[in-house]
Amino acid sequence: MKITSLIKRPTLILDKEKTLRNIKRMAEKARKSGVTFRPHFKTHQSAEVGEYFRSRDVSAITVSSVDMARYFANQGWKDITIAFPVNLRQIDEINELAEKMQLNLLVESDETVHYLKRNLKYPVDVWIKVDVGYGRTGIPVNESARVVGMAKEVEKVSTLAFKGLLTHSGHAYHAHSVEEVKGIYQDTVLKLNTVRSVLVKNGFYRVGVSIGDTPTCSLVESFEGVDEIRPGNFVFYDVMQLMIGSCSADDIAVAVACPVVAKHEERGEMVIYGGAVHFSKEYVVTGEGADIFGLVAADEENRWGAPIEGAYVSSLSQEHGVVKAGPDLLGKTRVGDVLLVLPVHSCLTLNLLGDLYSTEDADKKLTTLRSCAV
Amino acid sequence: MKITSLIKRPTLILDKEKTLRNIKRMAEKARKSGVTFRPHFKTHQSAEVGEYFRSRDVSAITVSSVDMARYFANQGWKDITIAFPVNLRQIDEINELAEKMQLNLLVESDETVHYLKRNLKYPVDVWIKVDVGYGRTGIPVNESARVVGMAKEVEKVSTLAFKGLLTHSGHAYHAHSVEEVKGIYQDTVLKLNTVRSVLVKNGFYRVGVSIGDTPTCSLVESFEGVDEIRPGNFVFYDVMQLMIGSCSADDIAVAVACPVVAKHEERGEMVIYGGAVHFSKEYVVTGEGADIFGLVAADEENRWGAPIEGAYVSSLSQEHGVVKAGPDLLGKTRVGDVLLVLPVHSCLTLNLLGDLYSTEDADKKLTTLRSCAV
Repeated sequence: MKITSLIKRPTLILDKEKTLRNIKRMAEKARKSGVTFRPHFKTHQSAEVGEYFRSRDVSAITVSSVDMARYFANQGWKDITIAFPVNLRQIDEINELAEKMQLNLLVESDETVHYLKRNLKYPVDVWIKVDVGYGRTGIPVNESARVVGMAKEVEKVSTLAFKGLLTHSGHAYHAHSVEEVKGIYQDTVLKLNTVRSVLVKNGFYRVGVSIGDTPTCSLVESFEGVDEIRPGNFVFYDVMQLMIGSCSADDIAVAVACPVVAKHEERGEMVIYGGAVHFSKEYVVTGEGADIFGLVAADEENRWGAPIEGAYVSSLSQEHGVVKAGPDLLGKTRVGDVLLVLPVHSCLTLNLLGDLYSTEDADKKLTTLRSCAV
Repeated sequence: MKITSLIKRPTLILDKEKTLRNIKRMAEKARKSGVTFRPHFKTHQSAEVGEYFRSRDVSAITVSSVDMARYFANQGWKDITIAFPVNLRQIDEINELAEKMQLNLLVESDETVHYLKRNLKYPVDVWIKVDVGYGRTGIPVNESARVVGMAKEVEKVSTLAFKGLLTHSGHAYHAHSVEEVKGIYQDTVLKLNTVRSVLVKNGFYRVGVSIGDTPTCSLVESFEGVDEIRPGNFVFYDVMQLMIGSCSADDIAVAVACPVVAKHEERGEMVIYGGAVHFSKEYVVTGEGADIFGLVAADEENRWGAPIEGAYVSSLSQEHGVVKAGPDLLGKTRVGDVLLVLPVHSCLTLNLLGDLYSTEDADKKLTTLRSCAV
C-alpha cells in the first residue's frame, strides 16, 4: 500500500531507515575522530527520534531553549547543553534542571555571569560563546582578551565551571561550494585554537572546543582541533543542505505529503494543500534565480524516491502551495492525489507540523512535538 | 504593572481595545454598504476572538481549512465558508459538517464537482473561485464561458446550490500605494461584474460576488458591486499592512514580547529570544532596501506604544532574533529586559505561537489556537 493513500491533510512522514543511516554515519565519524557527539535535538524535538540516538550510545545532547531542555530531561536525558544565550527570565526553570542533571549553559556577557552568580543555586558547566564570523551572538573571536576576562569572571562563581569555547559557524549555510564549507571549518578551528592557546597562557589548562553546524560536520572527513560536535539538521537533512552540498537527495529523511486541490495545466502548475503554516516561508534560490520552497519527490510504494525533474513548490501562502511541474507529472496527477514534498528547512517544517508519522507504519502517529505537548 | 514584567519566553499579547476597534470599523463599513460581513478567522483561529465578532452581530464566517471549520463549528458557528479549493480527501469531515450546519465550498474544477456529485451527502452552497490576477487558484476571470459551464455543472448536482463568484485579490499585497490598492479593487469588481452579467444572460439570476483581502477592504470607502466581504488580517493588522498603507501603527493589535538575551553595542544590535519558530520568516523590504522581520514598539505601562525610530528585527534564525537599535534604546536596555515586537505577518505569528494573552490580564491565557487544540 502506498503511504500516500492514508493522507488526509499535510502530513510529515519520516523515513526511519534514512534517519538511522544519517545518525550512524555522523556518530561513527565522531567516534573515529575521538570527539564528543552531542547532537542538536531542535531539528526533531521528538522523544522517539531521541531514542534512535540513544541506540547509537549518544548520552549528551544539545537543545535551543530551556523549555526544550525540560522536555528532554523528562525523557531521561541527563546531560544537556542549552545552545542559546541564557534567558535570565527562566532562572527558576534553569535551577530546577541544574538540580537534577548535568546542565551546560552559554554565556557571552558579564551581566549574565553576574546574574547567575546571584541567582543560580546548583552547579552548571559554562561555555563561552565565540563569534567566528556569523555575526549573531558571541564574543568576536579576535577579542581574546575579552574571552580571557570572561573566563576569569566565570571561574570566580562557585556554581559555574568554565568548560571551553563554543561556536556556531552559521555562515556555512551561505556557502556555495563544498570547498567553501571546508574552508569555513578550517578557519573556525584555527581561530578557536588561537584563543584557546591564549587561555592556556593565562592558566586555563582544560579548554574544550565545541562546534556545531551541519554543513561543516557533514563535509569534513575528521575533526582535528575540536573536542565536541553539535550538528542537528543532519538527522533529516533538507533541500537547503542539498543545495549547499552537505547531503545527497537520498539522505533527506522527511517529506510532507500534500493533497492536490487544483490543477492549472495552462500555467504548468498545480495547487497543493500545504502552505506557510506547514513548510514555513524558508526558500532557496537556484542558480537560474528560481525561488524554491520544496522539491517534489517520486511516490514509490511505501516510501519516496528521487526528486522529479522540474517539479518544485514555487510559492506559498498560508495554506496553499503552488507547484511547478512538467507535462508528464501534470498529466498523470489528478485533483485529490497526494504529492510528496521534500522541505527546504526540515527544522522549521517539523516545528510547524508537530506530528511525525513513519513510512514503517504511517497510520500510527510516531511522535508529537514538544511545541504542542508542553 | 508593566505587562512585560510577566514575560518568561516569547509571548503573544493582544490589545483587546484595538482589536474591538478594528472589528467595529470593518463591521460598520460593511453595514453601511449593505454587504455581508463574513470575516476570515484564519488570522486569529481563536474561539475567544470569535466572540468579539459575535458581539458585533457577525454570524457568518470564513476559514481556510476543513479542520478550522470543525473547530469553529464546535464553538457554535453555523454558517461557514471554507475559502480553499475542496480537499477531496476530507470528504467524511465535509459530510459531517454539511449535515449539521450551513457549509459553503469553493470549486474551480469539473473533477471536484463530479467528485462532490458522487460523494457529498448533504446540501452545501458553492462559490466558483475566480482568478482576477493573483494567479494562484481560480478560473481566469477572462474565461467567462468556462465559468458559465461550471455553474451549469454545479446546478446539475442536487446537493450543490450555485451561490456566485468568489475571489481573493492577493496581488493587493504587492501594491506600493493606497491608489494602487484602490485600483485593484475597482478592477476586481469590474471584472467580476462582467462575468456576472454573462451568467445572468445564461439564466443565472442570483449571482453573488464575494471579495476578501484586507488591503482593499481597509482602503475603499464603500463596497459597490459587491455582496460579501471576507477580510481576516484587519482584526490585528501587522507591519506588512502598515507598509502597504492599510492601517496605522496604532491599529496593530498584537505584539510579541521577547526577552533580550545578548547585547552587541559595537554592532548597534541586541539579540532577543524570538526567532523563526515564533514570528515565521516573513519579512518586508523598506524603501532603503532593509529587510524587516518586526518593529520594536515602546513599552508603556500595561500596553505598547508607537514603533521606536530605527529599532527593528533585522534577521531571524530558529530561536534568535537580531534587533537593530539606536544608541538610546541600546543604552537603556539590559540583558533580561523584554522588547515588544510588532510582527510582520500576524496570521503566521499567531499560528506559530498558539497561545494568546491579553493586555487586560496578561498572566491569564486568553485562548489556545486550534493548531494545538485539535
